[in-house]
Amino acid sequence: MLFEILHRSKKSSARVGKLRTPHGVIDTPNFVAVGTNGTLKALDNATVEEIGLQLMFCNTYHLLLQPGTDVVREAGGLHTYIQRRLPIITDSGGFQVFSLAYGGVASELKSKGTKKHDNSVLKITEEGVLFRSYRDGAKILLTPESSIAAQKDLGADIIIPFDELPPSHISPYALLTSFERTHRWEERSLNAHLQKPQGQSIYAVVHGGIDIELRRKSCSILSNLAFDGFAIGGSLGKTKEEMQTMLKGTMPFLPPEAPTHLLGIGDLPSLEACIPMGLDTFDSSYPTRAARHGMALTKTGPLNLTKGENARKFAPIESDCTCSTCTKYSVAYLNHLFKAREIAGLTLTTIHNLHFMVRLMEDYRAKILRDEI
Amino acid sequence: MLFEILHRSKKSSARVGKLRTPHGVIDTPNFVAVGTNGTLKALDNATVEEIGLQLMFCNTYHLLLQPGTDVVREAGGLHTYIQRRLPIITDSGGFQVFSLAYGGVASELKSKGTKKHDNSVLKITEEGVLFRSYRDGAKILLTPESSIAAQKDLGADIIIPFDELPPSHISPYALLTSFERTHRWEERSLNAHLQKPQGQSIYAVVHGGIDIELRRKSCSILSNLAFDGFAIGGSLGKTKEEMQTMLKGTMPFLPPEAPTHLLGIGDLPSLEACIPMGLDTFDSSYPTRAARHGMALTKTGPLNLTKGENARKFAPIESDCTCSTCTKYSVAYLNHLFKAREIAGLTLTTIHNLHFMVRLMEDYRAKILRDEI
Repeated sequence: MLFEILHRSKKSSARVGKLRTPHGVIDTPNFVAVGTNGTLKALDNATVEEIGLQLMFCNTYHLLLQPGTDVVREAGGLHTYIQRRLPIITDSGGFQVFSLAYGGVASELKSKGTKKHDNSVLKITEEGVLFRSYRDGAKILLTPESSIAAQKDLGADIIIPFDELPPSHISPYALLTSFERTHRWEERSLNAHLQKPQGQSIYAVVHGGIDIELRRKSCSILSNLAFDGFAIGGSLGKTKEEMQTMLKGTMPFLPPEAPTHLLGIGDLPSLEACIPMGLDTFDSSYPTRAARHGMALTKTGPLNLTKGENARKFAPIESDCTCSTCTKYSVAYLNHLFKAREIAGLTLTTIHNLHFMVRLMEDYRAKILRDEI
Repeated sequence: MLFEILHRSKKSSARVGKLRTPHGVIDTPNFVAVGTNGTLKALDNATVEEIGLQLMFCNTYHLLLQPGTDVVREAGGLHTYIQRRLPIITDSGGFQVFSLAYGGVASELKSKGTKKHDNSVLKITEEGVLFRSYRDGAKILLTPESSIAAQKDLGADIIIPFDELPPSHISPYALLTSFERTHRWEERSLNAHLQKPQGQSIYAVVHGGIDIELRRKSCSILSNLAFDGFAIGGSLGKTKEEMQTMLKGTMPFLPPEAPTHLLGIGDLPSLEACIPMGLDTFDSSYPTRAARHGMALTKTGPLNLTKGENARKFAPIESDCTCSTCTKYSVAYLNHLFKAREIAGLTLTTIHNLHFMVRLMEDYRAKILRDEI
């Protein structure tokens, strides 16, 4: 993979770039939609490509449990299996194993940090993590090596090393233990990857929670390894402000020529705050999940399609939107589809929201090129 | 509407024709997919048109309760509201009111005739039927005149008069009372329609249950009125054999130049049995409902996509199928989507099944033209 920075803003650390992968170019900054099981919810992959989504995020954890990465390998890899011609990024599976047990970043940001353990994590050792499949209760050992092997089966353009997501409230000692282990796991992941690169790129995951010193230490450790890019992961704090403070203190310590990714965050205020810090890509299920709840993204804020007041709005979600939903269907019809609990409503709104994100990121790139942000 | 019969088979009463409507031609015999709420489940209407479905069935009962036919009228009619350019047929609402209370034709055919009343029908009088909305509990009076007014608001190409679906096990006296009333209601519906034709056609609904004499009497009464076509409705018997015996005894008593429709039946064995009797169109939710249960239609019978044995079938549902699902996705991927409970699986299988029906009916027409059936 080659990351080419075309322009650095004179106003901030924002930059416009091109990530070149085996399956094509990703213009940055860009939004990465989440297709957990190898499909964006309520959309087929051909439609996703038509909308112009350049990078899709799939979850190794879910694909490992269903259909199994062996099935995907036999199919000829994830691109063939799910019929996506454009780039894919997969994570390591670690995030899901730990966040299902401890509650994830999103829960923390929503102050739901009290989510109780579901006991799916059975044992964490230096080797890896033993957990119980939520599908059939089988015990599965996930290690840096097995995670990378799974991601080799999947064959995404960008892969992620196996890491540990520590629970939000642990002792400083336990946090440090986890911090050190996670970096050993990342290095083992990198080594496993380098034995069989397959044209894939691998992004390190910067850890350290909201402890700026730990974050900088993580940047230092990982920058000295042969990673192709850097993802900001681990605990991002309990509020958007905490996350932004952490990112401001961390981003300057990453190599300025390397591509960066913010894991699991892609809400609109966060994009606005983080793009000027030099973050290049953002994955989030927010736009697609919002769509399924009847929330259509617009330049003036989300529009709740399910509200009664929209039953007679015989105009598209956005009059200047060129998506295949807005060029055909009215808010009134979408309101009806949601009221009547029709699946088509979910699909049509997802198309709009995804198109909105693609267009939003185009706008961001144009603004950076004009040094406006 | 003009119904033109292009060819009558030398082997049976099957015929190939063209129904010309304000929104285009329907080649017959043809399958009519059911889009109860103004959308086929799991498909947007643009995709339905691409597949080539020439006639779509929408339910006045459901559209009356949500969004309300006044909303559809304000939108400029159903075609504009749901963005369908091709022909639409609506029913009167009567079937749903009564079948929700008594159990419908499908339940009878499946020997579920014991389904208990849900008390939604409050009162049946000469004027019409008073029922309770399943949405908000409001009392609604549906009469021949109000059903036709609703169908004028919707503006479908073909409409259906208001009729009564008697419960399956009633006394001969009560059946005869219902029979006579339903024909008075149909005539009132026709008169209401003729006051404001709006370019719509209206099909009579032939009643009489499985009593051949009553069916023939119904044909006689309705043939003497200015209906544009004839739908076979009411109770169709408890088995497919009973239905076919009834149809064989009834069809010869309908005007041979008029288009005919079989209400609510479109499973493959019934199509094969009924097309040679001269039935022209068939509506059924079977292919779309089967799709949502993971059953893909194929020339060699339904394929259960959810079965474990399909996890590694890296070939399309049908290798010679030209639908947008088969030209891209494998059975293995569809199996995965169903296992992972992804909405995209429902959509992709519905596309295939609908395309299968469109192609099946093309085949039937070709065979009739060659006098093979």
